[in-house]
Amino acid sequence: MKQIIAGHGSGGKLMNEMIASVIKSILGPESIQIDDSAILDLPATKIAFTTDSYTVTPIFFPGGDIGKLAINGTVNDLAVMGAIPKYISCALILEEGFEIEEFESILRSMKEAADLADVQIVTGDTKVVPSGKGDRIYINTSGIGIIKNKVQRGDILQGDKIIVSGNIGDHGVTIMSLRNNLTFSSNLKSDCAALNKMIESLCNKFSDDIRFIRDATRGGVASVLNEITSNKDFSIRLDEDQIPVSNEVRGICDILGLDPLYVANEGKIVIVASQSKASDIISEMKKFPEASHASIIGDVDSLYPGKVYIETFVGGKRLLPLLVEEQLPRIC
Amino acid sequence: MKQIIAGHGSGGKLMNEMIASVIKSILGPESIQIDDSAILDLPATKIAFTTDSYTVTPIFFPGGDIGKLAINGTVNDLAVMGAIPKYISCALILEEGFEIEEFESILRSMKEAADLADVQIVTGDTKVVPSGKGDRIYINTSGIGIIKNKVQRGDILQGDKIIVSGNIGDHGVTIMSLRNNLTFSSNLKSDCAALNKMIESLCNKFSDDIRFIRDATRGGVASVLNEITSNKDFSIRLDEDQIPVSNEVRGICDILGLDPLYVANEGKIVIVASQSKASDIISEMKKFPEASHASIIGDVDSLYPGKVYIETFVGGKRLLPLLVEEQLPRIC
Repeated sequence: MKQIIAGHGSGGKLMNEMIASVIKSILGPESIQIDDSAILDLPATKIAFTTDSYTVTPIFFPGGDIGKLAINGTVNDLAVMGAIPKYISCALILEEGFEIEEFESILRSMKEAADLADVQIVTGDTKVVPSGKGDRIYINTSGIGIIKNKVQRGDILQGDKIIVSGNIGDHGVTIMSLRNNLTFSSNLKSDCAALNKMIESLCNKFSDDIRFIRDATRGGVASVLNEITSNKDFSIRLDEDQIPVSNEVRGICDILGLDPLYVANEGKIVIVASQSKASDIISEMKKFPEASHASIIGDVDSLYPGKVYIETFVGGKRLLPLLVEEQLPRIC
Repeated sequence: MKQIIAGHGSGGKLMNEMIASVIKSILGPESIQIDDSAILDLPATKIAFTTDSYTVTPIFFPGGDIGKLAINGTVNDLAVMGAIPKYISCALILEEGFEIEEFESILRSMKEAADLADVQIVTGDTKVVPSGKGDRIYINTSGIGIIKNKVQRGDILQGDKIIVSGNIGDHGVTIMSLRNNLTFSSNLKSDCAALNKMIESLCNKFSDDIRFIRDATRGGVASVLNEITSNKDFSIRLDEDQIPVSNEVRGICDILGLDPLYVANEGKIVIVASQSKASDIISEMKKFPEASHASIIGDVDSLYPGKVYIETFVGGKRLLPLLVEEQLPRIC
């Protein structure tokens, strides 16, 4: 089986051939510019710009792979800012010895994800590092989106509702189960998905009633909520029995000692919305399959200013602080 | 001495503290958005977009470090497209155990380079990988520039002149000397520099007479020239005695068996210009210290269509093919 060698990252023929035969043939001719930069027409003068490097291990997992993750993660980072994602760059750090067949499979999955999310991969870069200085493949995707809707950063008010777009913890628990060789339920897979179409629709219809949107990746839903309350004079109260978690995720979290509220998602958003429109927003979200389990999980109050807390099934209250460190390294 | 640990790449407090105390304090408050994307105003609707990951080893070298390289490399990739570089992203892959003091030094050098080149670092990302899965620090910088001048891609004509902006091979030879523990001349250092100001001035003044601009990084000047002639009906002839190379670089290339024409530069451009204006272009370039050794090194003819060749001191001719692989891995 063919493998990546140092020359694939050089400025010579081997690199050009690899780019032509592998990368361009899969990602499309625009993906790896012969020029140093892509030249792009933008029908707007306000843009969103984001970057993320993906170092997830393992690189293949139920529900996706590092390539799909790299596209959808960057698409979602743009979408939650009220931007329509348009252009994506793809910079690869390949480890010598990485199987070209696996590489091609990841590129195909990037292409498929980009097509689904309606974004173009317009420029790229390839570097090769020696064995022991990388981990098969790291991918950086940067992205440009056009700001169409006003950027959602309204004041958060007492009584506002907290919404999550579906079952939480699927991505992180899938990755950790793989790493721990836990037997797999066929239902458990990463939630890795592009949410831009759903977010665009929500922004179009509920622009005045959505105060905040964020994707709940590293650190999970609890970390996003802590970011919202940090240094504010309100608190966020969660209803334990409203939080959507699949049975598989709940079971594996028990085994591994994880709290799903802190587990990374790759296809879930948290929304703070007005009390009056929260139910309508849920109805709109449920039109999209990736949000079929969207729920109102809590609200904004003033009981513990600056904090996030949860009311448990039995009526107790427990604070959900920002963790000192993620429970799960290299989840994305 | 403090080191990078896994938690610095997590979604928790440790990461937030490191971002606040180290990254933000050096790169500035905009550099690491609390939001997922930077929102940018662009006074244009045509932009250039580029990405590069930097994996150079060693990370510190005479004339710069991986941070300075990451800023200047991306600035130059935008500038050679006729764009005014504006916004840069900074995505870091840090290896556990990397010294924070060295990290800070690299960030300071990024900030200094960004200020000098008049670009803003507007968004970022930090990942941490275990020891043995990285090499202290890899940096991805993506960049956005505004297309102001028309993009220079005029037809190349017989008689056009080939210009390089100064002594070639300084960057690659500096890196290789370090790796081979060769004794250092105090004069030898990387040419790492931002060329956007010079290129902007050239594009403003010689828009009709510049057919092509490219920075000669991986693969060196010879690889850029091969790209120009590839599948074309003209050839490029170089005058061996016009090619600017410092004595230090020439000496070390002899020792290491390298050809400076194939060695990477990080602050040099190749220009194809009209015969009539080539001297004026050289005069304009020499106003900028980074191009004090700018020279006309050859011209476009039809002797070996599709090829690049060099006329040697003694009148012989030698082809300069595209190498199969770079002589120097991980040079940038």
